[in-house]
Amino acid sequence: MRELRPEKIGKAMEQFIFTMQCDDKPGIVRACADVIGDVKGNIIENDQFTDVNSGIFYMRTVFECPRTEEEIRTQLTDAVAQFSPKLSLRGAEQKRRVLVMVSKQDHCLVDLLYRWRIGELPIDIPVIVSNHVTCESIAADYGIPFVYVPVTTETKPAAEARLLELVDEYNVDFVAMARYMQILSTELCEALSGRVINIHHSFLPGFKGAKPYHQAAERGVKLIGATAHFATADLDEGPIIEQDVRRVNHALTATDLVALGRDIEREVLSRAVRLHSEDRVMVAGHKTVVFTR
Amino acid sequence: MRELRPEKIGKAMEQFIFTMQCDDKPGIVRACADVIGDVKGNIIENDQFTDVNSGIFYMRTVFECPRTEEEIRTQLTDAVAQFSPKLSLRGAEQKRRVLVMVSKQDHCLVDLLYRWRIGELPIDIPVIVSNHVTCESIAADYGIPFVYVPVTTETKPAAEARLLELVDEYNVDFVAMARYMQILSTELCEALSGRVINIHHSFLPGFKGAKPYHQAAERGVKLIGATAHFATADLDEGPIIEQDVRRVNHALTATDLVALGRDIEREVLSRAVRLHSEDRVMVAGHKTVVFTR
Amino acid sequence: MRELRPEKIGKAMEQFIFTMQCDDKPGIVRACADVIGDVKGNIIENDQFTDVNSGIFYMRTVFECPRTEEEIRTQLTDAVAQFSPKLSLRGAEQKRRVLVMVSKQDHCLVDLLYRWRIGELPIDIPVIVSNHVTCESIAADYGIPFVYVPVTTETKPAAEARLLELVDEYNVDFVAMARYMQILSTELCEALSGRVINIHHSFLPGFKGAKPYHQAAERGVKLIGATAHFATADLDEGPIIEQDVRRVNHALTATDLVALGRDIEREVLSRAVRLHSEDRVMVAGHKTVVFTR
Amino acid sequence: MRELRPEKIGKAMEQFIFTMQCDDKPGIVRACADVIGDVKGNIIENDQFTDVNSGIFYMRTVFECPRTEEEIRTQLTDAVAQFSPKLSLRGAEQKRRVLVMVSKQDHCLVDLLYRWRIGELPIDIPVIVSNHVTCESIAADYGIPFVYVPVTTETKPAAEARLLELVDEYNVDFVAMARYMQILSTELCEALSGRVINIHHSFLPGFKGAKPYHQAAERGVKLIGATAHFATADLDEGPIIEQDVRRVNHALTATDLVALGRDIEREVLSRAVRLHSEDRVMVAGHKTVVFTR
Repeated sequence: MRELRPEKIGKAMEQFIFTMQCDDKPGIVRACADVIGDVKGNIIENDQFTDVNSGIFYMRTVFECPRTEEEIRTQLTDAVAQFSPKLSLRGAEQKRRVLVMVSKQDHCLVDLLYRWRIGELPIDIPVIVSNHVTCESIAADYGIPFVYVPVTTETKPAAEARLLELVDEYNVDFVAMARYMQILSTELCEALSGRVINIHHSFLPGFKGAKPYHQAAERGVKLIGATAHFATADLDEGPIIEQDVRRVNHALTATDLVALGRDIEREVLSRAVRLHSEDRVMVAGHKTVVFTR
Repeated sequence: MRELRPEKIGKAMEQFIFTMQCDDKPGIVRACADVIGDVKGNIIENDQFTDVNSGIFYMRTVFECPRTEEEIRTQLTDAVAQFSPKLSLRGAEQKRRVLVMVSKQDHCLVDLLYRWRIGELPIDIPVIVSNHVTCESIAADYGIPFVYVPVTTETKPAAEARLLELVDEYNVDFVAMARYMQILSTELCEALSGRVINIHHSFLPGFKGAKPYHQAAERGVKLIGATAHFATADLDEGPIIEQDVRRVNHALTATDLVALGRDIEREVLSRAVRLHSEDRVMVAGHKTVVFTR
Repeated sequence: MRELRPEKIGKAMEQFIFTMQCDDKPGIVRACADVIGDVKGNIIENDQFTDVNSGIFYMRTVFECPRTEEEIRTQLTDAVAQFSPKLSLRGAEQKRRVLVMVSKQDHCLVDLLYRWRIGELPIDIPVIVSNHVTCESIAADYGIPFVYVPVTTETKPAAEARLLELVDEYNVDFVAMARYMQILSTELCEALSGRVINIHHSFLPGFKGAKPYHQAAERGVKLIGATAHFATADLDEGPIIEQDVRRVNHALTATDLVALGRDIEREVLSRAVRLHSEDRVMVAGHKTVVFTR
Repeated sequence: MRELRPEKIGKAMEQFIFTMQCDDKPGIVRACADVIGDVKGNIIENDQFTDVNSGIFYMRTVFECPRTEEEIRTQLTDAVAQFSPKLSLRGAEQKRRVLVMVSKQDHCLVDLLYRWRIGELPIDIPVIVSNHVTCESIAADYGIPFVYVPVTTETKPAAEARLLELVDEYNVDFVAMARYMQILSTELCEALSGRVINIHHSFLPGFKGAKPYHQAAERGVKLIGATAHFATADLDEGPIIEQDVRRVNHALTATDLVALGRDIEREVLSRAVRLHSEDRVMVAGHKTVVFTR
């Protein structure tokens, strides 16, 4: 996390994160800079990107300001209305609320919880949802409500409806699928579009489908990886947020690759969750714009 | 290259590289160690691997020995005949002869030639073959014969026949396709099976087919890579020898990715050529066993 | 872990790990291969290396064999006695017993325990020792005895004596310092030479001493790393077992680097512990020979 | 390189790169956005960073604009004068002129020239300077003037004076030391402060001084690297621009490490030269701010 400058804290400045996307036109940055100046704001971080193919402009700005969120929102919204943007504004201290889903394998869940506990991830985890009871005791250790929502072919619609209720009930900003092994329906993916991060245990688009590490072992690849992406109806095709790889060789068995895969999966998912919790990830058609530091 | 111990050079010891593959049975290593002992050899490097799935044993041994290659070969062949192995033996100083193929893009060719010139690659490059004249002057700069073999749909069989003649005429051990943009026929792939290394400008099996960097840009991957593999009739499915990746982001254009790709391609191909020129690569069905250092 | 071939399990074959180091002379491999053949063993993995500078030969062999450990040991010892080797032999199923030391920061401890619990690390953890009580509840969660051994300048000799007692009492093979922030005395380092793995929160020899991430931020390095090494009297100079890095930039604060460092530290330490628990690490003067897979 | 949008080319828009650094105060971004708006500019890339410790603000903006460079410069200079900035403005098509220095080892030189020839590096190379004649023919192949400036203890001041003359005569923007093995005097470093990029054949601050690969081999590190940095009087302490590493092991000799090092050195130096030629590198005390893509 960025450290606040001590002298600024004394002035009751609060930090805000502002993101915006719209068709690229001259004057957008100026309009934003003007209004931030008008509210006595000071820009701390600023990233922008124009996708040449789509002509869409993406921006993320962090600024400190003595005004309230509502005052700023009103002025900003007016100032950029001419660009018909999709925008968001929030206090930087206001943590994203993340619902974590898991099945039986717990390495990603355990890693998210650990990072959350030591304050590395700027999120709240109000509830953990699973289609198995395997991880219930882990949730209990962390004092987080655990909701068991079993899924069969018959109960799937009801289970997904329950998930949406929980998203609502717990005021969830986004969902992290920490090795949740059920495919989401098209309807659910659309209802939560851009709000569900999945970890795919493969370097997409390398090995789609089941048992990617076994596929990798059979194909003899020299690097294996994992991919965090937004969930979409087409399972392996969602916009990619983050990826990483590790070097392997012929001597590693599928079991070895699975073990190594756990390291990559947990790290890639945690990075994606952190990026999204800081509003650094914007969906851009089939891909993402990620304003990393 | 491994440095010879000075005291050994004085004893007129020569280094030999011995590779072998056969069905795994007890006694193979012992039989080999016995015969190397009998010929007064001293093992310098030794690697072995048993593929649990196929039950095939792979071995590579480097040893120094005062006997001639023929004496050693006779004794080794007799000693391991019971295992019906596929084996090879050669003096380590005897360089592999590599025919390099190229089309118009010269970054892999230039890199191979540079490494060869400064003595980094233990190979000879007796001839360069191309379906374009673009790289003729580069070959001339290095004093290497350049053979122009144009390829059209009609002339392809004749062109491939010519290539086989050149392989024969120049006593070529293996072929390096340094961005040679023609698909080899099934017949040629079989005739030169395990003897043609191709560089695929993608992290296989990620983006098969044409324009992989454009595919990568559209898919928004966060890492791009390249793959060196043995050429097979199925273009993107040959046994993988070496791969590498570089991190990318949304801000890189397809042109940027192509430029970055050149760095990965030349390094991956050069590594694969070096590995194969030291007899470190053995085909194991759809994959390879690579005894790296 | 390597998978046993089913047909071999039926024959009551057991796997053994044999390591050896001695002055390099012709005939060593043959002597070993002979005795493994004599005891009806079948070699599964074999690695060897001769350090050209020191003239020392290092070997690690995994073989399966129907004989008892004692029978094999007797024959092996006799067969290689002429080379005056330092050797070790043990059943591959016999787990290394690892005493884990920790201070207040628990990320490495938590990671080791997690990997141990899911069976990824072939070790037993009989006891956790700390100079703080911070991690006591973590040990309790895993049902592992926790011994609090506070250290002050005055009590340091007594504390180290206590540690040696614990090593003895719990029949410990080696010690993993999982962010244990006390410097070991020269005497202790010597008493446990080659048996204490430390994780240094820096890419050695880059940033020795305290607060390496702050040093890295000030120096503006573009990669930060961590180093697992054997503890020696000279704190930052022990033989290096494993290292890794992650890319960073100017925008990361020292706090960010510390967070990123935790990821590298836990992964590097866990890898080093796994390597050593499989007898893959041999000290070679100031450095190590590591027979990775 | 960023692709121009076709419709913009028709409008005779030219791209400009603007960089600025000054004490951080509210209103800087607004002032810049205002003036870019006033000159009918459209921002294409924008990066900014405030160093919390020093309180210095760094910015780099690429914009397209129908006005002339002089018109823009006048307005920009006026608009930001209140912040007493250090600023630069230039047409993006106007290539940086790079003087390359080399001694005997040519791998970095050859790589820079290759990238320059195929248009990957947006630079001009008006002259190559060397203290040896070894690389004269390489310069001749590329049609670039080669100036031999031998250096002995006695002639060093004269040699450095000659270098400064050449910098002046050839209107050089910055110097790339492509394995130039002479230490520059304090005076020269100061005269060309922030304008000389050196490639250090080590992952600084790991192995300072001579023969770093031999040091690395002796120390048994598991990764080796290279560092591109600005030359300063203290040889190994200049602000770091770019670094990279490759994995190594005990089996690699110092000769192997040197060969692997060449790959890292040439890639790291080329990246640093490209970054600096696009005005992406700003010196920030002992370190750099690098606005990568």
